[in-house]
Amino acid sequence: MPSRSVDILVVEDNEGERESIVTALQAAIPNVRVIAFHHGMEALDFLFSRGEWTARLGVPPPKLILLDLSLSGSKGFFLLGQIRSVEQNSALTLTPVVIFTDSQAASDISECYRCGANSYITKPLSFPDFKAVVEIVGRYWVTHNLTAA
Amino acid sequence: MPSRSVDILVVEDNEGERESIVTALQAAIPNVRVIAFHHGMEALDFLFSRGEWTARLGVPPPKLILLDLSLSGSKGFFLLGQIRSVEQNSALTLTPVVIFTDSQAASDISECYRCGANSYITKPLSFPDFKAVVEIVGRYWVTHNLTAA
Repeated sequence: MPSRSVDILVVEDNEGERESIVTALQAAIPNVRVIAFHHGMEALDFLFSRGEWTARLGVPPPKLILLDLSLSGSKGFFLLGQIRSVEQNSALTLTPVVIFTDSQAASDISECYRCGANSYITKPLSFPDFKAVVEIVGRYWVTHNLTAA
Repeated sequence: MPSRSVDILVVEDNEGERESIVTALQAAIPNVRVIAFHHGMEALDFLFSRGEWTARLGVPPPKLILLDLSLSGSKGFFLLGQIRSVEQNSALTLTPVVIFTDSQAASDISECYRCGANSYITKPLSFPDFKAVVEIVGRYWVTHNLTAA
């Protein structure tokens, strides 16, 4: 999908969780277009139309960025900072970012909101609950929320 | 509820819609505590523990502020600005604000995100859809989203 818009961009470095998230989103939302990245830097290349994604220049940003906080290597906070530091007239700065994480630390929650996250969701431990929450999050932001793009 | 925390603060100047919102939230979320205001200034007094609400000083902010954009008198944008202009260490600056509005204007959507709204939802025209969306919004932010408070 080099030049088509996507609905949801997922950044998650745990392969099993990444596959579960994509599967749950596709099951919950008819015809949803999801792209998932293991590494934060790949996601930034996609969002900023860099590297192998230059053909995406001008394509509207996703309706939702679902971001794991505890990415290895390139941290979730760094990604959030990059996404929120683009020029004020970029549609990307208005794209909803939902943090999806194991952390319930008050300091992480505060810091994410201060850095411009729109919402903060913790990962349920059981697989059925995990799937159910991903479906609720996906439907809320893709079906009900309006974005500026 | 002078000194108890509330879960959802609603600001809506249409009396019928305000009642529908409160009823839908209470039906959807067991034991939810909702407070609803007609005027934006009353809501600010409540949030800032001013006027008749001084006993609320130190009480955590709501988990959700549901804000009508087109309030008469004190406009929704003014309220959003006031809520987002408190000191950075105030929990209120991290409280999710969801815009709930008739407007689908791209300029309103952009401006709300730029002013710090977390989410932007348009009011469905039919009553069953209106009720269903209010329930989804309430459940998402009260049951699933974590706030910094």
